[in-house]
Amino acid sequence: MRILGVDPGLRRTGFGVIDTSGSKLQYVSSGTIIVPSAASLPERLQVILDNLREVARETQPDVAALEIVFVNTNPQSTLLLGQARGAALCALSDSGLAVHEYTALQIKKSVVGHGKAAKEQVQEMVKRLLSLNATPNTDPADALACAICHAHMAPMLAALNGQGWSTAESRSSRSSARGGRLRSTDTSRGQE
Amino acid sequence: MRILGVDPGLRRTGFGVIDTSGSKLQYVSSGTIIVPSAASLPERLQVILDNLREVARETQPDVAALEIVFVNTNPQSTLLLGQARGAALCALSDSGLAVHEYTALQIKKSVVGHGKAAKEQVQEMVKRLLSLNATPNTDPADALACAICHAHMAPMLAALNGQGWSTAESRSSRSSARGGRLRSTDTSRGQE
Repeated sequence: MRILGVDPGLRRTGFGVIDTSGSKLQYVSSGTIIVPSAASLPERLQVILDNLREVARETQPDVAALEIVFVNTNPQSTLLLGQARGAALCALSDSGLAVHEYTALQIKKSVVGHGKAAKEQVQEMVKRLLSLNATPNTDPADALACAICHAHMAPMLAALNGQGWSTAESRSSRSSARGGRLRSTDTSRGQE
Repeated sequence: MRILGVDPGLRRTGFGVIDTSGSKLQYVSSGTIIVPSAASLPERLQVILDNLREVARETQPDVAALEIVFVNTNPQSTLLLGQARGAALCALSDSGLAVHEYTALQIKKSVVGHGKAAKEQVQEMVKRLLSLNATPNTDPADALACAICHAHMAPMLAALNGQGWSTAESRSSRSSARGGRLRSTDTSRGQE
């Protein structure tokens, strides 16, 4: 299974791709989408959308994983982050990928072993678990950590689903909702 | 000029299309994208993305207009609204449309004549300005109001731009940023 992890942000969006086979993890690719800060909001979202779709096209993952973000103390930052996250989710579902979401706690527990790990500990463990020669930068490290978390969780989710359990994280984005006609349109003048 | 106005929301996204010729306004189409509340977040964003792209494909607008949203008192709602707005902006820029953004104050001033207008006044004025037989629902009315606002502002923006002025609202999403390679990727293992 090939997993694409994404750490969305309006200034920098990190991504990381790994392969899993049983408990074995294999690094494939990682990087950062640098979003031009001088551009308008629609332009910046388009950069995330275009580049993340290109990553998916080039690396052909089977599934995607994202961190569930917590609201910022600054409401305006929360709104901006939400829009960046919306663009990232659109790129993933547009690429036909089911998206699994994990909390920071789940990711840290899965990668470091406890939920209070610092950024540097996550980076160090990502380096070790994927046998990298160098420590990855923060954004791709967070994206890779999210992918590793899904690699650890996927067998459990599969087992739970097999038993008829359903969890928030096991919900995929590819359901009957896709392509459905959910609009009420009034094309004739004054009909509304 | 054909203008597509959008009022994004995670539960309901309104849209409205009008034609302008000089100071003449002509209603073309409007409606609401109903987003299934039981679906996962990625699914819901995909519904907005798919349906809004379809609206753009069917109605072939020249330009799009959106309301600049203000942050909600509930941070979680702000994050959700941000993601819905991100999906709407992606659909518009994906359809090749420049996006112009206006504040609620600008829209109300433009449509009703003052910035403290109630929802019902906006609906009533949209009905009058577009010579509709019936009052449009809230979501499409807000979307149409945003399109009308751009119809009123566009000549002024064009004049300002001609004089070398630049305003936040006059920035379009179709710039050199599009399609640019803005990623740093490390495909070789351990190179990061």
